[in-house]
Amino acid sequence: MSEFTQDQYWMQRAIELARLGQYSTKPNPNVGCVIVKQGQLIGEGYHPKAGQPHAEVFALRQAGEHAKGATAYVTLEPCAHYGRTPPCAEALVKAQVKKVVIACSDPNPLVAGKGVQILQAAGIEVETGICVETAKTLNLGFLKAMSTGSPYVRLKIASSLDGRTAMASGESKWITGTVARQDVQHWRAISGAVITGIQTVLADDCELNVRALNGIDLATVVQSKRIVLDRQGQLPLSAKILKNPETVMVMTPFRQELADLGVIQLAPQPLSQLLQTLTQQYQIYDVLVEAGATLSTAFLQQGLVDEMISYVAPTLLGQSARAMFNAEFSEMAEQLRFELVDVTQLGQDIRLRLLPTQEMI
Amino acid sequence: MSEFTQDQYWMQRAIELARLGQYSTKPNPNVGCVIVKQGQLIGEGYHPKAGQPHAEVFALRQAGEHAKGATAYVTLEPCAHYGRTPPCAEALVKAQVKKVVIACSDPNPLVAGKGVQILQAAGIEVETGICVETAKTLNLGFLKAMSTGSPYVRLKIASSLDGRTAMASGESKWITGTVARQDVQHWRAISGAVITGIQTVLADDCELNVRALNGIDLATVVQSKRIVLDRQGQLPLSAKILKNPETVMVMTPFRQELADLGVIQLAPQPLSQLLQTLTQQYQIYDVLVEAGATLSTAFLQQGLVDEMISYVAPTLLGQSARAMFNAEFSEMAEQLRFELVDVTQLGQDIRLRLLPTQEMI
Repeated sequence: MSEFTQDQYWMQRAIELARLGQYSTKPNPNVGCVIVKQGQLIGEGYHPKAGQPHAEVFALRQAGEHAKGATAYVTLEPCAHYGRTPPCAEALVKAQVKKVVIACSDPNPLVAGKGVQILQAAGIEVETGICVETAKTLNLGFLKAMSTGSPYVRLKIASSLDGRTAMASGESKWITGTVARQDVQHWRAISGAVITGIQTVLADDCELNVRALNGIDLATVVQSKRIVLDRQGQLPLSAKILKNPETVMVMTPFRQELADLGVIQLAPQPLSQLLQTLTQQYQIYDVLVEAGATLSTAFLQQGLVDEMISYVAPTLLGQSARAMFNAEFSEMAEQLRFELVDVTQLGQDIRLRLLPTQEMI
Repeated sequence: MSEFTQDQYWMQRAIELARLGQYSTKPNPNVGCVIVKQGQLIGEGYHPKAGQPHAEVFALRQAGEHAKGATAYVTLEPCAHYGRTPPCAEALVKAQVKKVVIACSDPNPLVAGKGVQILQAAGIEVETGICVETAKTLNLGFLKAMSTGSPYVRLKIASSLDGRTAMASGESKWITGTVARQDVQHWRAISGAVITGIQTVLADDCELNVRALNGIDLATVVQSKRIVLDRQGQLPLSAKILKNPETVMVMTPFRQELADLGVIQLAPQPLSQLLQTLTQQYQIYDVLVEAGATLSTAFLQQGLVDEMISYVAPTLLGQSARAMFNAEFSEMAEQLRFELVDVTQLGQDIRLRLLPTQEMI
């Protein structure tokens, strides 16, 4: 095995480890670490949960004395600041590793190159950028939030082949099948918040929580916040979403009865500002929008969507059914085009992952 | 290799051979034949074109004397009737093969079991049903036409993610990309006829012919008929589709000027009757409908579609754009549901192949 493929091999293992924390580390990033000496794995670890040790600490503990002279593979630049745990860069120095291979730099202003500096100042060889694109997908929200102050926004839409989400009456059950609906749980579980509109809550009385994840103990999942955009203050206190008020946020004119329930209230504000508020005040870095056409269209037209997750069911609902996207364009030049990055069959439905094209933003 | 997998192996080879004729044999079926003796291939062939010898004849010629005592693999029951060539069942008897393995029975009333009878009467062992499902896909139109008197109807639709085919103005260029548009040429080329509506001809001045097929010499392709449904007789003589009038058919009130061009005219009739006419009078067994929403919806609602080929482009055109399907349903129970049998990414677009569900027909 050449050194190049060795580095990739061990970094892939570190990435797989990092992914084990995908439902539990928020708001912290997913990080994995592998320590290798003479081609042998001597320690590995990942960050499981905010407040618990970082990946490097677990891996160094396992390696013990053997870490001296070894190579550490880390998916994200080791931290340089004292947070809830001491800086990992210093721990690597103390363990006297010979080399540190890093996938992604950490854009967190508290780290941002300082981790690398600490290592290099101690004479440790540092290499960055191995498997960087894959490693980035572990932390799209964290990376975007640290560099822009706004969260990574995924818009989920489920529609028929003819682009409809419900009948004119609102009847909408079972457009997509169980496999696709199950898949949505994953996206909720990796998100800091799920955003919906008051009309969706009034129509469906949805809870938008994570109820089942294949093979995952739900007790280990950090539930995302559920955010209702309710500019007129229409949310009924009987809404099912308020059964667990501690994870609910409502954008609404102030209501004492919501405050009494312990619900966080946000002042009505434009969507782009709301997103900044979520990141900067509440450490919400990944947002999943699950809403009706009006709110979905607003996010799309304001250029606030980083990724669209579109479930398409093999059915035709007809032209009086509700459109998934209710902008009005008169020319082809106005269309919103996406780059298709993945298509997956889920039962009888398909899931498309789409990124807005350059021209669109 | 067990006998079971040997049979499948050689039949797969016969199926691959048969497919070589997919663009050139119409209205004849695609058939392939392989002759094997002591595990060795000694002859193979396929039917290349109506009027030329059948697959068995080519394979027997190649095998020569060695055919005696060999096993012949044929994708479709050998013919038993004198057509433009003598019956293949008799040729196999004359060559003294020991065994014939057949994928599909031939529902053609002129064959229908008679081929097998001739073989068995001569003491040849016959086995049927090997790879039958794959072999059927070679000849969906032929098999349906022979057993029902109507063609296999594919409906092609290209739409945006929000189920639109054009702007309100009619502007529609470049919804799907070049790879998807190229793919359409395949479906035209395997069809006996492409059907469109007069509105599509008036709006797009389309020709609907086969202009390019990856790696295929167009001179070997039997061009499908182009059929315009024009109940009011509005087709202008300047339409591009009339540049090659010998492959054009128009359903229209009789017009002398079309007769003068050599265009076949069909009396206005209901769609289901038209389909029967095409099969029974014109040996058209595969039909591709490439039309606007009105005609596409009529085919769908009348239960005349055997397969929908839906190209979806990653774009949103908005709710004032033209819907792909213009039926009006008020309840979910009325939806037209399909079974998704294939999803393929074609460039930036996807192609879905869909079969109507049982309940729908």
